Amino acid sequence: MTEKNDRQEGRFLRACRLQEVDCTPVWVMRQAGRYLPEYRRLRERYTLLEICGNPELAAEVTLQPIRRFDLDAAIIFADILLPLKGMGLDFRFAAGEGPVISQPVRSPEAVRALHTMDPWEHLSHVMEALRLVRRELDPGRALIGFCGAPFTLASYMIQGGKSKNFLETKRFMYTHPDAWKELMGKLVQVQVSYLNAQVDSGAQAVQLFDSWVGSLGRADYREYVLPFSRALFQGLKSRGVPLIHFGTVTGALLEDMQEAGGTVLGVDWRVDLDQVWDRLGTGQAIQGNLDPLALMAPRPILKRKVREVLAQARGRRGHIFNLGHGVLPPTDPDAVAAMVDWVREESK
Amino acid sequence: MTEKNDRQEGRFLRACRLQEVDCTPVWVMRQAGRYLPEYRRLRERYTLLEICGNPELAAEVTLQPIRRFDLDAAIIFADILLPLKGMGLDFRFAAGEGPVISQPVRSPEAVRALHTMDPWEHLSHVMEALRLVRRELDPGRALIGFCGAPFTLASYMIQGGKSKNFLETKRFMYTHPDAWKELMGKLVQVQVSYLNAQVDSGAQAVQLFDSWVGSLGRADYREYVLPFSRALFQGLKSRGVPLIHFGTVTGALLEDMQEAGGTVLGVDWRVDLDQVWDRLGTGQAIQGNLDPLALMAPRPILKRKVREVLAQARGRRGHIFNLGHGVLPPTDPDAVAAMVDWVREESK
Repeated sequence: MTEKNDRQEGRFLRACRLQEVDCTPVWVMRQAGRYLPEYRRLRERYTLLEICGNPELAAEVTLQPIRRFDLDAAIIFADILLPLKGMGLDFRFAAGEGPVISQPVRSPEAVRALHTMDPWEHLSHVMEALRLVRRELDPGRALIGFCGAPFTLASYMIQGGKSKNFLETKRFMYTHPDAWKELMGKLVQVQVSYLNAQVDSGAQAVQLFDSWVGSLGRADYREYVLPFSRALFQGLKSRGVPLIHFGTVTGALLEDMQEAGGTVLGVDWRVDLDQVWDRLGTGQAIQGNLDPLALMAPRPILKRKVREVLAQARGRRGHIFNLGHGVLPPTDPDAVAAMVDWVREESK
Repeated sequence: MTEKNDRQEGRFLRACRLQEVDCTPVWVMRQAGRYLPEYRRLRERYTLLEICGNPELAAEVTLQPIRRFDLDAAIIFADILLPLKGMGLDFRFAAGEGPVISQPVRSPEAVRALHTMDPWEHLSHVMEALRLVRRELDPGRALIGFCGAPFTLASYMIQGGKSKNFLETKRFMYTHPDAWKELMGKLVQVQVSYLNAQVDSGAQAVQLFDSWVGSLGRADYREYVLPFSRALFQGLKSRGVPLIHFGTVTGALLEDMQEAGGTVLGVDWRVDLDQVWDRLGTGQAIQGNLDPLALMAPRPILKRKVREVLAQARGRRGHIFNLGHGVLPPTDPDAVAAMVDWVREESK
């Protein structure tokens, strides 16, 4: 806590804490990655997992968007699946189809066989990358750590990769409720220690990516997910760093996600920000929510859409401008630059 | 109108009109199709498009689930893409990847080149299938016609198939607003004549499938979609048949979809039915909304989930029990049978 209070906090951290800011802070999910030519050039020589596994490369990639755009936060370059190897599940990234887990978790026995790994042993390269980035980063810009939420990670583990309907995940959840709890409990344990290690290594805020949780109805969310996301947030609470709770397609789950926890709730473009605050109260910090596809629109449309998001936020304390989901690989970096500039200008 | 009033209307049509029913009517999206062994046997000999194009086969497939389950409605077996050929777009179904449109619509010129087809010329086989089914169907069971909504069809036309992010669709919409309006206008014209022809051929209700509309934020829905869906419903209004307006991931769009029109609003499992009625008023008939994945759960869990849907509907007039999206191919038909029976028993 001392270190944090000694340092001048920038507008991202101030907004997370509902403090006054000179203009709306902005960062972009997946701001480091495939839409940047300098990242693609690195990827000609290294695989995604090679970059994640090498602290210098991961730090370099994390900083690439910071050099280009006037962003208020950097997010460490990593993948939400990194903890799986230490837990005993091997995976690879297949061209065009995303992650493929060689032996998906499909039985209570497979859950029992999973380890709860020590992040300092298995993911020390992430901690080292965080330290390198924090050293380079301007003190006014925050460094965000992150991990996958228990539900989203469990769904990858059970499906064996991406999914449209989450058929195997839901079947497992309904059929093996005890093994489901065991799996979610192990994931909570792993991710609490992983995020704590990230905070120890320089992360000043952490984001929980529950990207696929919007596939669940409310009753299922409350029964199979909420207790575990809550336990995870509880495990970080004493650290005093802002906790961002993010999901997509969560319009019907906002109150439940708020109940699970998080200093900041991240929402996608399917909900209107003014309605989100109406539902959750002005004491809730909110991150979002431009449609990443708006970056494909002609500039005047993009500008109008940036303005619409800011107009709905009405300059409330606790708004952090972001996309509603990650920036897409075919995005023009100049559109991101224009967006960041407009957020600055229009929110002053 | 005379014919309709002379015939004893079953509980599905009564519920659509907010009239009293003895128990909650039930049908299932994609109730005719790949999860039924008798359908799969037919598919060994005929392609999907061969079945759609042959009135006897389409009628047979439409009736298959009615012979198995005590359903309150049959929905004509067809595909939402059928009108595309008459409009000048060729497509095929590629194994495992769904529909593939050979020449996606990617320019204003491509929109201008599209025809507005006459359903009696190009889709007379659908009308014949409707007549055959109506003749076979018990008078207490309704026959539902359907078509794709303008947005969902436009997205297939522009993407060239299924999509995750609707990148090309949104890019087109933002970049070519006039061509977008022209495309949507042509689709409205085609679908109004198509649905009217279906009503002429025995359809007693029609469902508009706007399956992918939940990819849009509210402002985009109101600007690029609502006026066209409304025009489509207006073009059917004088027929006096119930109009079902269905979409998925529409939790933030319910009021806007209600404004666009429809006698019945179809919703997915992501929203709680009691909250839907709170928002839309008890004068709105609602269809839904069991998670199709609940059919993969052990029977006691399935039963509990059927009860939860009925409990939220609280026996309100205008509830039609259905899934929140189509039944999935790996579903056990016996689970569907159990679900239908429980809806009957529990809603008496």
